[in-house]
Amino acid sequence: MSRFDGRRPDQLRPVTIERSWSKHAEGSVLVSFGDTKVLCTASATQGVPRWRKGSGEGWVTAEYAMLPRATNTRGDRESVRGKIGGRTHEISRLIGRSLRAVIDYKALGENTVVLDCDVLQADGGTRTAAITGAYVALADAVTWMQHNHFIKAKSRPLTGTVAAVSVGIVGGVPLLDLAYEEDVKAETDMNVVCTGDGRFVEVQGTAEGQPFDRAELDALLALAVNGCTELTAAQQAALAATEA
Amino acid sequence: MSRFDGRRPDQLRPVTIERSWSKHAEGSVLVSFGDTKVLCTASATQGVPRWRKGSGEGWVTAEYAMLPRATNTRGDRESVRGKIGGRTHEISRLIGRSLRAVIDYKALGENTVVLDCDVLQADGGTRTAAITGAYVALADAVTWMQHNHFIKAKSRPLTGTVAAVSVGIVGGVPLLDLAYEEDVKAETDMNVVCTGDGRFVEVQGTAEGQPFDRAELDALLALAVNGCTELTAAQQAALAATEA
Amino acid sequence: MSRFDGRRPDQLRPVTIERSWSKHAEGSVLVSFGDTKVLCTASATQGVPRWRKGSGEGWVTAEYAMLPRATNTRGDRESVRGKIGGRTHEISRLIGRSLRAVIDYKALGENTVVLDCDVLQADGGTRTAAITGAYVALADAVTWMQHNHFIKAKSRPLTGTVAAVSVGIVGGVPLLDLAYEEDVKAETDMNVVCTGDGRFVEVQGTAEGQPFDRAELDALLALAVNGCTELTAAQQAALAATEA
Amino acid sequence: MSRFDGRRPDQLRPVTIERSWSKHAEGSVLVSFGDTKVLCTASATQGVPRWRKGSGEGWVTAEYAMLPRATNTRGDRESVRGKIGGRTHEISRLIGRSLRAVIDYKALGENTVVLDCDVLQADGGTRTAAITGAYVALADAVTWMQHNHFIKAKSRPLTGTVAAVSVGIVGGVPLLDLAYEEDVKAETDMNVVCTGDGRFVEVQGTAEGQPFDRAELDALLALAVNGCTELTAAQQAALAATEA
Amino acid sequence: MSRFDGRRPDQLRPVTIERSWSKHAEGSVLVSFGDTKVLCTASATQGVPRWRKGSGEGWVTAEYAMLPRATNTRGDRESVRGKIGGRTHEISRLIGRSLRAVIDYKALGENTVVLDCDVLQADGGTRTAAITGAYVALADAVTWMQHNHFIKAKSRPLTGTVAAVSVGIVGGVPLLDLAYEEDVKAETDMNVVCTGDGRFVEVQGTAEGQPFDRAELDALLALAVNGCTELTAAQQAALAATEA
Amino acid sequence: MSRFDGRRPDQLRPVTIERSWSKHAEGSVLVSFGDTKVLCTASATQGVPRWRKGSGEGWVTAEYAMLPRATNTRGDRESVRGKIGGRTHEISRLIGRSLRAVIDYKALGENTVVLDCDVLQADGGTRTAAITGAYVALADAVTWMQHNHFIKAKSRPLTGTVAAVSVGIVGGVPLLDLAYEEDVKAETDMNVVCTGDGRFVEVQGTAEGQPFDRAELDALLALAVNGCTELTAAQQAALAATEA
Repeated sequence: MSRFDGRRPDQLRPVTIERSWSKHAEGSVLVSFGDTKVLCTASATQGVPRWRKGSGEGWVTAEYAMLPRATNTRGDRESVRGKIGGRTHEISRLIGRSLRAVIDYKALGENTVVLDCDVLQADGGTRTAAITGAYVALADAVTWMQHNHFIKAKSRPLTGTVAAVSVGIVGGVPLLDLAYEEDVKAETDMNVVCTGDGRFVEVQGTAEGQPFDRAELDALLALAVNGCTELTAAQQAALAATEA
Repeated sequence: MSRFDGRRPDQLRPVTIERSWSKHAEGSVLVSFGDTKVLCTASATQGVPRWRKGSGEGWVTAEYAMLPRATNTRGDRESVRGKIGGRTHEISRLIGRSLRAVIDYKALGENTVVLDCDVLQADGGTRTAAITGAYVALADAVTWMQHNHFIKAKSRPLTGTVAAVSVGIVGGVPLLDLAYEEDVKAETDMNVVCTGDGRFVEVQGTAEGQPFDRAELDALLALAVNGCTELTAAQQAALAATEA
Repeated sequence: MSRFDGRRPDQLRPVTIERSWSKHAEGSVLVSFGDTKVLCTASATQGVPRWRKGSGEGWVTAEYAMLPRATNTRGDRESVRGKIGGRTHEISRLIGRSLRAVIDYKALGENTVVLDCDVLQADGGTRTAAITGAYVALADAVTWMQHNHFIKAKSRPLTGTVAAVSVGIVGGVPLLDLAYEEDVKAETDMNVVCTGDGRFVEVQGTAEGQPFDRAELDALLALAVNGCTELTAAQQAALAATEA
Repeated sequence: MSRFDGRRPDQLRPVTIERSWSKHAEGSVLVSFGDTKVLCTASATQGVPRWRKGSGEGWVTAEYAMLPRATNTRGDRESVRGKIGGRTHEISRLIGRSLRAVIDYKALGENTVVLDCDVLQADGGTRTAAITGAYVALADAVTWMQHNHFIKAKSRPLTGTVAAVSVGIVGGVPLLDLAYEEDVKAETDMNVVCTGDGRFVEVQGTAEGQPFDRAELDALLALAVNGCTELTAAQQAALAATEA
Repeated sequence: MSRFDGRRPDQLRPVTIERSWSKHAEGSVLVSFGDTKVLCTASATQGVPRWRKGSGEGWVTAEYAMLPRATNTRGDRESVRGKIGGRTHEISRLIGRSLRAVIDYKALGENTVVLDCDVLQADGGTRTAAITGAYVALADAVTWMQHNHFIKAKSRPLTGTVAAVSVGIVGGVPLLDLAYEEDVKAETDMNVVCTGDGRFVEVQGTAEGQPFDRAELDALLALAVNGCTELTAAQQAALAATEA
Repeated sequence: MSRFDGRRPDQLRPVTIERSWSKHAEGSVLVSFGDTKVLCTASATQGVPRWRKGSGEGWVTAEYAMLPRATNTRGDRESVRGKIGGRTHEISRLIGRSLRAVIDYKALGENTVVLDCDVLQADGGTRTAAITGAYVALADAVTWMQHNHFIKAKSRPLTGTVAAVSVGIVGGVPLLDLAYEEDVKAETDMNVVCTGDGRFVEVQGTAEGQPFDRAELDALLALAVNGCTELTAAQQAALAATEA
């Protein structure tokens, strides 16, 4: 069975990871999963939030947002409404936790990296694209910090790599990397964040319609782990390019 | 191996479900999982939000909050700070989704039920206690709606039951229903929402320290499903008592 | 003439004062005036707000709030609306002022006590129940502070006791401790806060319908002073129980 | 004993009531109690808030504010801080209640009057000056509404007059109409709102230091009633001037 | 051709500048341009905002606001709406920039002056009246600071004077100092801020209807420069009066 | 004299206008003025804001924002701070006014176009790039509205074209199209919005240091008009490309 865009059930959309997209940020990546495009910038500064001062440990946090017309219908700006919605908060927290899973705070020293993930165009999977791209921006910021003596050249604040993908059951069929058209029809929707060595950082599965049973859960997890493996390879390829 | 409070790894804390706690609400439950106490009220009103008018379908939503001194250290009131934090938003959304998983909107008709889950005392597992208690409050509100002709006596807006429990890995050991003292030490933390027939509504697992592997995930899921089965029995027992 | 619930005009509703309701707070009381139930917690911390630093004096403040479904019709959460209403502000300030009237700031030292008064169920007189219960929570917190060396064992930060009650004129008859059903019909409504020795801390009388004359004012004051005397006795009895 | 400004204990400060201060408002008064100056404007519009539509009854409400430099030290603007403080809320509510006490909603018809009381210069007694001035602005707005056929020429929406004054105990002596310098030293502070026939609309007494006893309360009430009688005469004199 | 109020096209409305309007502020001016009345207070304090500490330089800033009934139709209070509108922000920034153009920060030392410009009555040209009046309030505050040893007697923080006026094209005719009735009909509207020696601090021209050409722009600039010259003379006359 | 980047004083930076950048919006343009990159999307919807309903006329409005790391130092998100800053408000209003200057509301019918201008990378001139790009996005949205029968094929809602550029005096030399490095050093800064036929829509000149005289103003206006002529040509070239 082929999908609306011709993909196999276990196939990712075309993935691109464009480094050094911005001239200002210490790390910046324009990541695309098909038509989903997210600009991820990593801002490195010396010092940590007040509650962490004197600990000798660093901090990594993230903020996610969508441009108003990233979606098919224009959404109100959260800055204009004067508050951040629940979905935005939830995804920002997820991205931050995912990246912190591969950070050694001691090795980072008392420095802070903020990852901004702004969705320029949305077509499903914005949070998983954001995590996947933000990891690369973070890796570039770490290199920058080494070159600029925020941390020692021998420090290794990154303990591994992290990538994420969505999976879901549509029409009874488990699918990898849902596009928006598939996402709205999914009976079950799951976001999985994995490290490069295939372990789990986050597993978030939600029954949108019918509850799902154990067999379905197992099928989705298998798809997701394979998808993350491919995404990890794409990250490594992007980072292997000579000039950031 | 026994836990700090003498429980076995696969043992719930004592669970109580006290119905009709409030004289005003259409359904109200004081639920406790050990020292965690959550007051769940269900408010039923005729009519639905604007975006749903004319659909013939109802709506169920939830709001979660903590009293400032529900925890060991007093937290600022979100009303005083003027905005709701990310954690509060996230849990409110989780509770709402969990209850909507067992609602037949058509059978509910154009009526709305709001579940308010206010944590009076926190000791770990507040969101899972909230879901478990809110289901019972919702069931009472549905009965009230039948008696008060918001819906027909034969309508069955509830398509099943729902309960939730936390599980986690502490010191390498998978444990059921973490108390706060265990929660802060957990390497992995997972909240699982199940229907009464043992299927999944939500699975949210997070690596707090080390990423977790597939075997650990399987162990946690098994514990959680058994815990939910016990909680479902406690809900049924509470609802079977003659007088709400 | 007897009232809707069988009380005499000068009779309080049944009053209960349950101490140590919460395991976390330094003082905690569940107070009920009939069906009105308020959870009062006292949080004691070392240090004072910035404007008071170095003065050698302490501070006591209060925050009042209602759970959304404490009332017959669900109210919006102030945290969700993003601001606190005028009524909430006004009552929080009243409770704070009332308790500060019996505090010797020097004897308290540079410590702060925050009283949180959360109305779990409302049936008239929530602010007076809050003041009456908060005094007991404050007294327990002071004892705790002595035992935990925040203040010296011989310090006496409490210079007296404080209790409060509502009075009003309904159908031309002055009544003590109005229930909600009476409150909505009252032509005049007055809240009186007294010290244990029968002096006034606050007198707030409002004509809801017709203005009131001096004779009516005198009748209300007399009822209120007697009511506060009874409440003071209930506070003392609660505090006299061996185990907080 | 004479006061810091040479007044007798039972003497008001010089009171001026300047009508038609603004060219836009339907009623506008610049009222001064000594150095306290409040601009009171009454805005009359057809229609009522949504919750009152179809009732055939009108509505009167008030908003109080201080210019940032009305006081000795500049205060932050509440518009800049993004929220209204408790004191502002409390006084706005007091002014609204006081004026509504002399309004016949039926005679007002489905019209709304908003009283804006902006303190241009503060020297104690701003809320009582505001009430006293706002009554005159309201009376002018009612006349305007009769002339402009919002209400019938024979309608009498005003059922009486209302004025307010502060009293307090300073150095053991009960004083009328406290200036700021007296207010900050007062042991007890009371605001009294009276109708023109000498009955009470609001009595708000607060012990700032020592609680007050019944004899002190009686002395303060007597001073306040006399002060309100004088203020009522000043209102009537202002309204008797030929040209508003 | 004469204007609706009998003025020539190049004629200002009657201008009054009343100094020392408030007893509290270090400088205070009630300025009127015809029926437009703005209360400008200057608050001088020692110290500067955090970002400027240790620089040895001072700071001057401004806040503009309108009373709700300054205009023909009552506007909502920005404090009640919980946020400041774009127009308010924009004008506050313009006033601040205009005054800073004639400030020598070094000579001011680490002191701050805040100019509050509150429109009591609006009839066009509120921002230009505010700038013109605020300059005089600022000059008085500087004198006060010299007398009170915030700055040395020989310091000259003011490097010049500043005044502002509006001009516009109405019915094809360039006019000076538009009243509200003219402003709403203007095809082009321009605000010009000049120093006393006839140079420009700000030029803000906007086509409200048709775009304007270079000849029209030149005509407007000529009118504005002449108007500012007259306003500068009025400022000097006000400041020349013996006792502020 | 050549500039830091080798440009002549009267030379624009390289300008690119990339249409159809987003798959969702009715018009979308990525515009760059050198390193300044702004994504402009035009969202067309049927209907108008409430205050305009029934007028038969349309509405055009704009919102401007910067991504947090568009600049050299990361700025706080306005959505997180919960309010929009004065600069953002001011620029949003400027963009809206500029585009409305070339709109025939009647020809637009009761339709609304919202222009979102999000700065992805900032290097001076973000508001002028935004206006220049937004015009092209608006033109594409108008075409889309004709094809989709929001307006008649013969309707011409655009009465002209509009473009904008910054000019300023740096080191005494008038320069066209300031880059950030020049902007921070400018003594005078001016933004000019012109129609395609060389008339002015907005002229906003500000003395950052010394006030400017008439000769300087004339030099800046001449540079700006020429710059806008070039930008108009670039807009026309972009729109002339076959496929939007």
